[in-house]
Amino acid sequence: MTGNSKNKIRIALDSMGGDFAPVNEVQGAFLAYKEVANSIDLEIVFVGNQNKINEAIAQTQLPESAYSIIHTDDVITMHDDPVLALRNKQGSSLFVAAKLHSEGKADAFVSAGNTGAMLSISTMLLGRVKGVSRPTIGAMMPTVSGRPTFVLDVGATIDLRPRFLFEFAVMGSTFLQHSLGIERPSVALLNIGEEETKGTDAIRETYQMLSNSSLNFIGNIEGRDILTGAADVVVCDGFTGNIVLKLAESFINILKSKIKNYSSRSFLNKLKVGMMVPTLKNILSEFDYQEYGGVPLLGVNGVVIIGHGKSSPKAIKNMIIRSIEFSLNNINSKIENALQLT
Amino acid sequence: MTGNSKNKIRIALDSMGGDFAPVNEVQGAFLAYKEVANSIDLEIVFVGNQNKINEAIAQTQLPESAYSIIHTDDVITMHDDPVLALRNKQGSSLFVAAKLHSEGKADAFVSAGNTGAMLSISTMLLGRVKGVSRPTIGAMMPTVSGRPTFVLDVGATIDLRPRFLFEFAVMGSTFLQHSLGIERPSVALLNIGEEETKGTDAIRETYQMLSNSSLNFIGNIEGRDILTGAADVVVCDGFTGNIVLKLAESFINILKSKIKNYSSRSFLNKLKVGMMVPTLKNILSEFDYQEYGGVPLLGVNGVVIIGHGKSSPKAIKNMIIRSIEFSLNNINSKIENALQLT
Repeated sequence: MTGNSKNKIRIALDSMGGDFAPVNEVQGAFLAYKEVANSIDLEIVFVGNQNKINEAIAQTQLPESAYSIIHTDDVITMHDDPVLALRNKQGSSLFVAAKLHSEGKADAFVSAGNTGAMLSISTMLLGRVKGVSRPTIGAMMPTVSGRPTFVLDVGATIDLRPRFLFEFAVMGSTFLQHSLGIERPSVALLNIGEEETKGTDAIRETYQMLSNSSLNFIGNIEGRDILTGAADVVVCDGFTGNIVLKLAESFINILKSKIKNYSSRSFLNKLKVGMMVPTLKNILSEFDYQEYGGVPLLGVNGVVIIGHGKSSPKAIKNMIIRSIEFSLNNINSKIENALQLT
Repeated sequence: MTGNSKNKIRIALDSMGGDFAPVNEVQGAFLAYKEVANSIDLEIVFVGNQNKINEAIAQTQLPESAYSIIHTDDVITMHDDPVLALRNKQGSSLFVAAKLHSEGKADAFVSAGNTGAMLSISTMLLGRVKGVSRPTIGAMMPTVSGRPTFVLDVGATIDLRPRFLFEFAVMGSTFLQHSLGIERPSVALLNIGEEETKGTDAIRETYQMLSNSSLNFIGNIEGRDILTGAADVVVCDGFTGNIVLKLAESFINILKSKIKNYSSRSFLNKLKVGMMVPTLKNILSEFDYQEYGGVPLLGVNGVVIIGHGKSSPKAIKNMIIRSIEFSLNNINSKIENALQLT
């Protein structure tokens, strides 16, 4: 295979964003390189502290042809206010990586850093896709069916306006179809009952907009249906979605705490728990929120993949793969078309 | 002990409301009778199908002095529309039991029936406590700390208005203090971040109202904190609260489904699961939403205890006990006072 026959893709990777930066970023990049090397001419642009990045690269077999480094001194932390960061931290790894993408020097921007800062900086630098009122962030939630449910919005846009929710549905559906290959994804509206008369005025209006669209709208679902896999896309406002996501994510920790409490009560309990834990871990492995890597910031005029601060190398790898897919599949032009049609 | 020294309490019990009516209702009433017989002169007014109720009573040792029966033919089912039920089913066990209470012929009204119908019928027949804008229903959610968190509203009032949420906080706090004996319950606002600048305009305004009140307000909590027991009272609008409650209630079923899937994959898996399940059941027994029995419909000018359709005899017993406490402790006058003070 020659380089000429392969797609050339350049990914700007904020290498200081995650909690284990830059080690997990670099290791994830190496995993991504190995995964796509046969079909894609991938170049990772590591943005961050040059010395630390080089140290991490030395621990891998990443070839020199597969990366470049852009040095930055500043870092946006998880505690930085997104709007202040946008104004005062333009020399940070996150900002510089986003800027590389907005200037066309990279095909995508990937970070496991401050989500709010990614949202504000990406929106300012990249602008919005034509027809999109507000950008949105979804979450891939593991379900009983084994197929994840894409819940959006989970915090990017907290105002509940029917038009916003309708656009989330179009963006989520288009993303699943063209990035993950799900034909006519089913779309549900998160509500407090199944009947179309349920919910606030804004929710009922959203129901009507979704009903009259060309989306595969299957109606309302309730909180109890989110994790059963009843729909491919679940639409809600960012306030509700953020609370749903964080509550669902807490479930495993709650279970762990209960088991720990029980275990500490007696030696016999400790033995019982010791025998149970390996099986339980196995059963719950699919409920690992790391598996899906990152999610796109949908609606911005670019390719932005957001990851969890705790992202493992595998999660970073998945984020890079997802950014490649998003770019090659031209998801944004498909969103633009879908919004014109519906 | 003589009857004269005991408080005389009469409870109107909708005996056709729950999924296992009237058997669980009658058995629960008998359990309640046994529990309070030494201190309270309890009379259960069973409202429902006389023959079926008598059959169920024959299976208990409930003395004739401890009950009466009011026959009704009609029943409000879980599928009945609350507003239509209010208009068209005034001969139902639920309506007649509520009416007995509103006419002073019973000290409280207890039902495991249609929650929406209980809300609409009770609000119409009883009216509201002075100072209350909207009635509210809370949920006692089990937490890691072992002490439940009272989340309200969970669906009675879905409009997010700061004044409503503020009143929910006052009602929830007063109920926990005077009915469950929790001194100065901690109150938190459910939000998408801890900072007071987070959330929608209405949420931020609610934050300020709670901050300036005499409540023990501890600030915002996020979705991940609900089940940790971070606060005694968690306040939110009824739309968000309903989704939170149903999502949290679904966790155990999700876990069961995952375990079942795993078990069905091989004989070895089945063995492992068989060994694990008794311990896991033990650990999760505190997460049984039946334990708390019912919750009050707060803000109506009466004593209304709402239970889950699946209520066990134990849950019905707890609902009756709760209605007695609510009545004897004069919770409504305490809510009225608290709303005047704050």
